[in-house]
Amino acid sequence: MQIGQDEHRAALGVDIGGTKIAAGVVDAGGRIVRRAEVPTPRGADAIDRATADLCLSLAATHPVEAVGIAVAGLVSSDRETVMFAPNIHYRNHPIAARVRALLDDAMPVVVENDANAAGWAEFAHGGHGASDMLMLTIGTGVGGAIVADGRLLRGGCGAGAEVGHLQIVAEGEECGCGQRGCFEAYASGTALERHGVRAVEDRAPGAERLTELAHADGGLRGRHIAQAAAEGDAFALGLLDDLGEWIGRGAASLVAVVDPDVIVIGGGVASTGAPLFAGIERGLRRHLTGADHRPFPRIVPATFGNEAGILGAADLARAAVLTPA
Amino acid sequence: MQIGQDEHRAALGVDIGGTKIAAGVVDAGGRIVRRAEVPTPRGADAIDRATADLCLSLAATHPVEAVGIAVAGLVSSDRETVMFAPNIHYRNHPIAARVRALLDDAMPVVVENDANAAGWAEFAHGGHGASDMLMLTIGTGVGGAIVADGRLLRGGCGAGAEVGHLQIVAEGEECGCGQRGCFEAYASGTALERHGVRAVEDRAPGAERLTELAHADGGLRGRHIAQAAAEGDAFALGLLDDLGEWIGRGAASLVAVVDPDVIVIGGGVASTGAPLFAGIERGLRRHLTGADHRPFPRIVPATFGNEAGILGAADLARAAVLTPA
Repeated sequence: MQIGQDEHRAALGVDIGGTKIAAGVVDAGGRIVRRAEVPTPRGADAIDRATADLCLSLAATHPVEAVGIAVAGLVSSDRETVMFAPNIHYRNHPIAARVRALLDDAMPVVVENDANAAGWAEFAHGGHGASDMLMLTIGTGVGGAIVADGRLLRGGCGAGAEVGHLQIVAEGEECGCGQRGCFEAYASGTALERHGVRAVEDRAPGAERLTELAHADGGLRGRHIAQAAAEGDAFALGLLDDLGEWIGRGAASLVAVVDPDVIVIGGGVASTGAPLFAGIERGLRRHLTGADHRPFPRIVPATFGNEAGILGAADLARAAVLTPA
Repeated sequence: MQIGQDEHRAALGVDIGGTKIAAGVVDAGGRIVRRAEVPTPRGADAIDRATADLCLSLAATHPVEAVGIAVAGLVSSDRETVMFAPNIHYRNHPIAARVRALLDDAMPVVVENDANAAGWAEFAHGGHGASDMLMLTIGTGVGGAIVADGRLLRGGCGAGAEVGHLQIVAEGEECGCGQRGCFEAYASGTALERHGVRAVEDRAPGAERLTELAHADGGLRGRHIAQAAAEGDAFALGLLDDLGEWIGRGAASLVAVVDPDVIVIGGGVASTGAPLFAGIERGLRRHLTGADHRPFPRIVPATFGNEAGILGAADLARAAVLTPA
């Protein structure tokens, strides 16, 4: 393994998730030129070893100059330690140092929160043309990333941009975090499913197509709502529009704080397209303070899908080589 | 007027408010070594001229190397133009260029939002020892400033950190901005007065001392509530505690987004001290997502009062000389 200056500064991105570890060699243009993955093993030591093995395997044929690791968890602001990762066996785990040692200290290793890494990929290579960006990832929860004047907002202890836990309804719906009224309790794919399931259970007028899909497939899931909407089903389109309005409502508060040029919407639900985005724009216009006295941010779909974590982690690692913290 | 390198890089800070323009020569240690003010004249040209005259007068005896101007309004991200200032006669006004010309282009001039300038003074000279700071100024409204990793968060169009317009109660109290449920509709000095006035009007049990003070002084104001609290009046103390809890509740959402090391509380109400701060801390602990899994931010009173705008504007202007945008 060697520092590959003649390889146009390629870097390795690793995305450690609850079920798999995916890694890729990313060139300076933000392209994944080689990719590999393994199931996530149990235990921090095993995860470190699997991560290092993936790196060694990829770097054997593609020299890289740095390794970036994206993890779904709270990452220390020095990007060395995963303080808390609910779905992985990490508690105050110095992952960067461990993997660095397993790689014989041959190259720099940094760790980054996975949502931050994905947001950075959109900012650096997504073609959104902005200096200030808000990314919202609408999935099981609502994740996000904030880029302020070209820099990722990490926060004092690395816990910044937890946008899903903005509390938008006082004493509102229960959230998985233990609080009430959080943005993600209203604007996530989980909330969309909840509303669809309720409509099917209540035999709501117009929900016949959703009911059919639910019965044929052992219960209603978000993908059934997306499918019905794609078929033009008015009820499903209405659910997506309502979800969009909630996303826009929460985004209004975030725009007041962050003032982004662009809002990038990612996650599975974003692929439903126009009906969702119309709702987001309407919700944001309705709820944004001083909307008539300021530029209105662009709202665009994410450019990258599941590979964003790999891309962003690699890019952040490359940047760390150029400008050590 | 000359560039004063031998004066330890003093700079001029100007704070343009609705009633007066205050200016000061600020040394590199953040001390105001000379100060002057004039009433705010009517009209953009007259304000520019009065600002330049103040600068010329102060710089005649104290050489300075840059001028920073703080304005209560929306400032463009290049820090040249006031796009919108509700209380001053500025609409898309290129104030920095105008004042620079009136000073014969002898020195750099930058303009900054007044809350950002005040927040920067707290960050740079307030002694709070943090890299990431949230400032909340509790006055007629709720203003604020955010410093992320040592840099002021300005936003893409200069409208960042409008923290008072985070919407914390869906369909809640009307806000002066035209929206409903904004943080400042619950956590401002105006909200405190509203609750006090309601208690007096409703002859609420325990509000006797507030009623006396209101009758003696032509109506209840925030200062009466502060006075009664200082005397130990339980009802007034309760109002401050409730206000604090609302401040803490809104701060919880901001902490989820910004993740500051320290929360600096400024504005007139902050001087009421312990009862308010106890409420803030309780509200924040109750509503902060994952409070048990992260460092808890310190909550401290602001170091500077009304002079913070002058101090911060001067410091930002000095920094702009060192690192031009």
